[in-house]
Parts: sequence; structure tokens; C-alpha cells
Amino acid sequence: MSRYWSPLVHRLTPYVPGEQPKLPRLIKLNTNENPFPPSPRVVAAISDELANSAEALRLYPDPNADRLKEAIAARYATAGISGRQVFVGNGSDEVLAHTFAALLNHLSPILFPDITYSFYPVYCALYDIDYRTVPLNEQFEICLDDYRQPNGGIIFANPNAPTGGLLSLPAIENLLAAWQDSVVVIDEAYIDFGGESAIPLVNRFPNLLVVHTLSKSRSLAGLRVGYAVGNEELIEALERVKNSFNSYPLDRLALVGAIAALADERHFEKTRRAVIDSREQLRQDLLALGFEVLPSAANFIFVRHPRHDACEISVLLRQQGIIVRHFKLPRIEQFLRITIGTTAECQGLVAALSEILGQSLSPQ
Amino acid sequence: MSRYWSPLVHRLTPYVPGEQPKLPRLIKLNTNENPFPPSPRVVAAISDELANSAEALRLYPDPNADRLKEAIAARYATAGISGRQVFVGNGSDEVLAHTFAALLNHLSPILFPDITYSFYPVYCALYDIDYRTVPLNEQFEICLDDYRQPNGGIIFANPNAPTGGLLSLPAIENLLAAWQDSVVVIDEAYIDFGGESAIPLVNRFPNLLVVHTLSKSRSLAGLRVGYAVGNEELIEALERVKNSFNSYPLDRLALVGAIAALADERHFEKTRRAVIDSREQLRQDLLALGFEVLPSAANFIFVRHPRHDACEISVLLRQQGIIVRHFKLPRIEQFLRITIGTTAECQGLVAALSEILGQSLSPQ
Repeated sequence: MSRYWSPLVHRLTPYVPGEQPKLPRLIKLNTNENPFPPSPRVVAAISDELANSAEALRLYPDPNADRLKEAIAARYATAGISGRQVFVGNGSDEVLAHTFAALLNHLSPILFPDITYSFYPVYCALYDIDYRTVPLNEQFEICLDDYRQPNGGIIFANPNAPTGGLLSLPAIENLLAAWQDSVVVIDEAYIDFGGESAIPLVNRFPNLLVVHTLSKSRSLAGLRVGYAVGNEELIEALERVKNSFNSYPLDRLALVGAIAALADERHFEKTRRAVIDSREQLRQDLLALGFEVLPSAANFIFVRHPRHDACEISVLLRQQGIIVRHFKLPRIEQFLRITIGTTAECQGLVAALSEILGQSLSPQ
Repeated sequence: MSRYWSPLVHRLTPYVPGEQPKLPRLIKLNTNENPFPPSPRVVAAISDELANSAEALRLYPDPNADRLKEAIAARYATAGISGRQVFVGNGSDEVLAHTFAALLNHLSPILFPDITYSFYPVYCALYDIDYRTVPLNEQFEICLDDYRQPNGGIIFANPNAPTGGLLSLPAIENLLAAWQDSVVVIDEAYIDFGGESAIPLVNRFPNLLVVHTLSKSRSLAGLRVGYAVGNEELIEALERVKNSFNSYPLDRLALVGAIAALADERHFEKTRRAVIDSREQLRQDLLALGFEVLPSAANFIFVRHPRHDACEISVLLRQQGIIVRHFKLPRIEQFLRITIGTTAECQGLVAALSEILGQSLSPQ
């Protein structure tokens, strides 16, 4: 505490990201990174940029990131999306931050699930936004009917995190058809691992904003690129806030790398398919070890064991160099969120778990 | 305007950066970029990272950017600066944004010069911060004595922008010795082109925060890296806001490139000396053309012609493919801000200006 701090700082409880340990040879299944490298085209494009226009690093990047926006729009051309309906930012976390400031800060409280991406309440504290959480049902599913109540905005992740649960597009369409009084933000960070994006609904519902990231299905967490797609009016609000915060959030290399990543559909299909296959195998293996595994359409699974304490399991895994994520939060403190790794990583995890469960663990 | 916009969005007047034209063969002297390329070590370091650990792009960067903070602290080791006194961000614009939120948002209005970096009032609008501007004197200099009045914080640029005027370190020390009731932020984006940094004062004054960028004197506007140095308590406030906004603002390549840039003291000295020399030559040449040239310690000069309209000159220069910055703002509408280019660029500018002034321009 300090007299120099703005009153805001005193009320913040910052988000704590999963740790990024600097130790080698870990099996790192704690921050939902993709186990596969990005498209070789990303590396080639950035290397080319360095080889041919290193000098250009002295110049500011395009503040509007027009080429990247066009590349994103092109991906959704069949949905009639134009570059003016795209907003880009320094990771989807920055896109979400601007979204909270620009579109979710009204008099009424906003709504989001009681169990979801834990950054949402942090943004609310940052911008002094009132919110109400809507409980997942007992199967840990989002029930969109519960969101039809007065609100200043709605945000949920689909698939949800950390559960992995997926909502169908018709269910989302139903909500949007019934609710146009405030903005509905769908955080689709994990959509490519088994869901259907709501982006094709954007031109039918002016209050829909869909947020994506290149960190997960494009294997580019290290490059920091996210985007949002919505009605031009919603995008204009985001641009105004962004241009009041930082004119150039995406550096020249990130812009070039992101465009190259979006151009490699084959790598994208191959790696996301491999993640899905690995997820199904891991699911089978963990079921065989007695875990309960929630249905997941993401690149992670959310599991609990009826007889063993989740926190204790995570500590024992860590001793073996395997990191998974455990949240000390109500309703989910007996769950572990496990990122889908390569086949070898998943096998390493399963071997360690069967050894741990075979030992005399204290009962949950 | 839209019912979906937060009330905040309606009151914003976003910052407008100098244009980044996509045309080739311009003489671009409008956004204070360095005319020289960054250190070859930057390109080598990023290329190495791509060659040896391209796979690592799938992983999040270090959210705390520890290695970069240590590299910055090492530069100020003689001033006793530790890595815990360093905050880093996605360009100094992001660092400044978090500074306004974390340290300059109090009940009393903050103070800054009437003529200075025009992003400051934009941040105030974004965070709903009350401010009062303090006029530069008739020589367009900051008078720090005028800042000894009740305030919620003080921010000024040194050298100031767009004037280029420099405050001496003793003058700054005088203010700090007399004023410790609120945070004093010194934006030293241009300090390496002729001034003395206030960073050595940080350990004597707990209310001093000094902000730097790698965009100017390190020729890395395209990489987006800025930092702040201050008391640990001030840095903690910035970290709390940053960790409530975006966990990983610096991507892996920017981190590697920034560390390499800071390691090349020779390139830094050589290029900043060349900019200073180029500035002195341009100053002489413009004086010879009848311009009034304000004293500048930055990589730009601020000039006006007693007989010719500034806006008109800028339009005619543009027709010849030369872009300088003209601000349609009170007190300075007859000035042009000209970024220091290479010798050839400055010669091109001078040739164009002498041709333009020789024509029958309308008088100011």
C-alpha cells in the first residue's frame, strides 16, 4: 500500500497466470499451450522479414494492422465478414480488456458463469464493472436460458474454461434471437478444438462479438495475437479505446507471423486434429484410472478422482516434473485442468498418475 | 454512437498517431523514428531464437520479463537500480497508459504542460482523470516552479515534445526536493539525443518515475518495447494494473530483440551521435532559410518561418514526397515538427524547402 497508488490499485486482485517455469525437461500441461510447433511458414515469414527488411524495425508498425485484419476477414469470407469488422490486439487478453472497457461497462451488472476464465472478474475490478455470476448446472454446463435477465452485457467462453464444455450454435442463436439489449461476447479461445464458431452469426446479430486467439490452435502463445469479430459499430468502440491506450499494440514481426499462420490451413488442420485425437486417448486412459472426465471440446480436460485429493495429486505430479493446473476455487477444488500434450507427454502423465494412485494417497 | 457502447467510449477523442504511409520512396520525417537501423545484434538475436527455438513460439513468454528487466537494471547499475525497480510494457505508450491508471488517478487534478505529448489528455479521458495544463513560457520552455501547486500528480516529457526543449537535472532535482506529495513522471522518450536521464535520482525520491522507450534511440519503433524505472512501490502499482490487463504484453521475439539492443552500446553511441550531428546541420540549414528553430535535445526540431504558413509548407512538402508533422493546436499552429533524418534525407528536405520558400507562398 502506498499513498502514491491510485485508489484503483488498492482494490485490484491481479490475475495469476499459470506458471512459466524456467526448468528444462518438464511435462508442461498447465497453461493450455499447443503441444505442436507453429506452422513453419510463421518462422519463414518472420525470418524473411528480418532478412529483407530488418531496417524496417526502426519504423512503427501499421497502427491499424490492415493486412492482418484483411487476412482474418478472408478466413470468414463465406460469412460475409469484412476487414472493418475485425479488431486485433496483443493477445486475446488485451482484446478482452478493451472489450470490458468499451462494451461491457454499463449501469447494470454484466453476467458470466460462476466457473469460467478467471480473468473476467479481474477486468471487472480494473474497470469498476458490476457483475453477477450465473452458476453452471450440476454437470458443469452453461445454461443460456439463465442469462435472459436484465444485464449490462454477457460474456462466456465457448468451449468454457476450465471445464471444456461446449455450447451448440443453435443454443447460442436462441439466446441472441431473444436478447439484443446488451452486448454478448463469446470468448472462443478454444473453439478450433471441437466447436463451431459463432462468427457466421455476426452479421445477423449486431450485439454479438466473438473473440479469438492465435495462442492456442495456431500454436503462437509466444507471439501475442488475438482478435475480435463483430458489427462495425462494436469494432469502432474497441478501436476508440485502443487508440486511447496504445496506437501500435502489434509489433512488425507479430503482424507478419500472424498473417503467415492464418495462411497455413493444412498445418492448422493437422495439428488441431492431432490434439483432438490425443485428447480422446487421454480421456480413455484417465477413465481407466478411475477419473471422472468432463466432456471437452478444448485442448484441455477437466478431471477429478472420486477417491483422491486433486491438490495432492498435482503436488505429487510436480515432484515428477509434470505440471497441471489446480484452482483453489469453490465447486472445482477437486478438479485438475490438464492441457492436452503430445502422445508422449500424455503417456508420461498417465504413467505418473497410475504410480501415484497406486501409492497410499490420503482419501479426498 | 451506439447503445452498445460503454458511456466511456462516447467521451473519448482517441490519439491520432502520425501517419504510416504505405508508399515507397518517401522522406518520412513525421513520427520521430530513428533514421538508422537497429543494432545488427537485434536481428541476429531474433534470427537465432527462430533458428534454435522456433518451437518455443507455441509457449507463452515470461509474464514477468525477468531477463529484460535485469538487462535494463544492469544499464543503471551505477545508480543502484535493481530489476525490481523496472517495469516493462508494449511500447512506452502502454507503460504510460498503466502509469496514468496506477499512479496519476487521484482526487486532485494532475498537471502537465499545455504543449507536450498529446497522448496525455487522451489517457486522462480514458481513465476519467482531471487535469490542469501549465503553460510553457514564451520561449516554449517548461518552468518547473509553476508545478509547485496542489496536484494529483505531475507528468512532463524531457526533452519535451514537440518542442525538443530540455530541462537540466538540477532543475528537476529542485522540483523533487520540494515536492513529494504526488508522483512525478518524467517521460524521457528522447533523452538519449542530448539530455541527462533522471534515473540516478530514483533512489533518492520515492515519488519519481522515469519512462523510456526503445523506439527512438534504439531504432526499434517496430518492436514495441518501453520501460519505467522507479521505487519498488511505484513499480508494484504498475505490475498490479498490468496483471489486471494482460499477463504477457511482450512477445518472445520482442524480449530477445530488446535485450540484444541494450547490449550493443557501440551501435547506440554511434547512431545517437549521428542523429545529434544531423540535427545540428539541419538546424544551421533551416536558420539559413530564415526559419526560427527552437533549441532541441531530441531527434526532431520544432521550427516556424516568420513569413510562411506552416500548414501550407507541410502540404507543399508532401507533394514532393516529404512528410513532416503539423499540429493544428493553439500556440503551435505555425510550427512544424521535423524528425531528424539521415544526412541525405535532411538535404532533400532543405532543397525542397528552399524551392518552396522561393515560390510565391501566401504570407503567414
